[in-house]
Amino acid sequence: MRGSVLSVPVERFGRAVAEAEAEKQDFLAVEEPLQIRIGERDISITMRTPGNDAELAAGFLFTEGLIRRAADIASIACAENQTTITLADGVEMDPERFQRNFYMTSSCGVCGKASVDALETAGCTILPAGIPKVSGTVMISLPDKLREAQAVFERTGGLHAAGLFSAQGELIAAREDVGRHNAVDKLVGRAVLDGRTPLGEHVLMVSGRASFELVQKAVMAGIPILAAVGAPSSLAVKTALRFGMTLIGFLRDDRFNVYSGGSRVS
Amino acid sequence: MRGSVLSVPVERFGRAVAEAEAEKQDFLAVEEPLQIRIGERDISITMRTPGNDAELAAGFLFTEGLIRRAADIASIACAENQTTITLADGVEMDPERFQRNFYMTSSCGVCGKASVDALETAGCTILPAGIPKVSGTVMISLPDKLREAQAVFERTGGLHAAGLFSAQGELIAAREDVGRHNAVDKLVGRAVLDGRTPLGEHVLMVSGRASFELVQKAVMAGIPILAAVGAPSSLAVKTALRFGMTLIGFLRDDRFNVYSGGSRVS
Repeated sequence: MRGSVLSVPVERFGRAVAEAEAEKQDFLAVEEPLQIRIGERDISITMRTPGNDAELAAGFLFTEGLIRRAADIASIACAENQTTITLADGVEMDPERFQRNFYMTSSCGVCGKASVDALETAGCTILPAGIPKVSGTVMISLPDKLREAQAVFERTGGLHAAGLFSAQGELIAAREDVGRHNAVDKLVGRAVLDGRTPLGEHVLMVSGRASFELVQKAVMAGIPILAAVGAPSSLAVKTALRFGMTLIGFLRDDRFNVYSGGSRVS
Repeated sequence: MRGSVLSVPVERFGRAVAEAEAEKQDFLAVEEPLQIRIGERDISITMRTPGNDAELAAGFLFTEGLIRRAADIASIACAENQTTITLADGVEMDPERFQRNFYMTSSCGVCGKASVDALETAGCTILPAGIPKVSGTVMISLPDKLREAQAVFERTGGLHAAGLFSAQGELIAAREDVGRHNAVDKLVGRAVLDGRTPLGEHVLMVSGRASFELVQKAVMAGIPILAAVGAPSSLAVKTALRFGMTLIGFLRDDRFNVYSGGSRVS
């Protein structure tokens, strides 16, 4: 497995930079492309932080609706910057469907509504109401727990993080990546490979903002509560409302905003 | 043109939230898909904040190496969530080349080095050394200037920004988007349409972190100085070093780090 941190020389400028500190080493988050393949077919290339490549590939294929469970996978082969998934006998994938997924429908073309509709086409249903219940105190405790689990961020300041928590606020797993969507795919991929999806009792917390893409991935994984340190987008909120997901934004400094599904927060 | 801000109801929880403030309206950054086409051919779908769609499409095609100047474009037609560029007579594009661009070479497959090499294949050359010179004082002044220009961020907290500055620190243009790469494409697209590329005397400043993708776009536009509020990735620094670009990170709170090309900073 490749390293996720690289040391480079850096010059520091500005206020409160002492002479001795002006030039020294800094730690960078590693960013390298990963090619994801199904058999001989190229599916995607994503810029990611090396590590947990099998999880990333499995999670990506799952959240894009191309596989549905670990049993759909016969094998995963990880080479440097290339991960190939071989599907189990009898599992088909429709490349046309992949091309169109999540962005357009033949009826209305490209729009946010089509993107949301596509999740229904992929088999997503409304999340069960009121499950689980999470207290506001637990929600407020999550950012510190996620930060404590971020080994690489502490050194680089350059990685996004995603954490999967129980409804009682226990950290189940955390992943880091230069791409926020990759961190979520790694978490979901781990759960898929372990046969733990749908994650109907869990809370997903992400650093940064909540975009459509992150809500899409949470809906595909059946996660009922998504919380972000930053702001949600309009389409993130629309998608959460459609599927009855609890979407929380600005979870920091002991407060947060609820944009949908407030009945799960006590 | 569609709106870039949407008002939604929100419940607020936690410390220091007064009763009267607990439920009220919040403003969200709008996120909608945009399909970019060349003639009849679908090139890309990107989630973006509506507005400046022609700039975004022109900038995307330019930074991907598919067009080289405004004269390559015969017309730009913007419909809702779809922008179609018609190429000028005699301008060809190689769809195969687009598929491979920036990620892989036939010699070494997929890796960071191949991604950087692809920029040379696309015609990028080493940026002229020492041009322009920018003082540390000017650099430190940029974050406040960019923030002042961010009309939407003030209301939503949810948008990335990119600003183009002169070497004297004068703001030339600023763009906002839910996607950091889109904000840069809008800026570059404006310059392409105005016949102002390469932007060899300019400083590009972005909110958030500096990834390979942002350095790639700056190199394609001939921008010699890229500054980010957050951390750069390993591949961002490697790419900047290769093309002699000045890459600055952690530009905030009156200080910054220089990861490459320090000779342009006085």
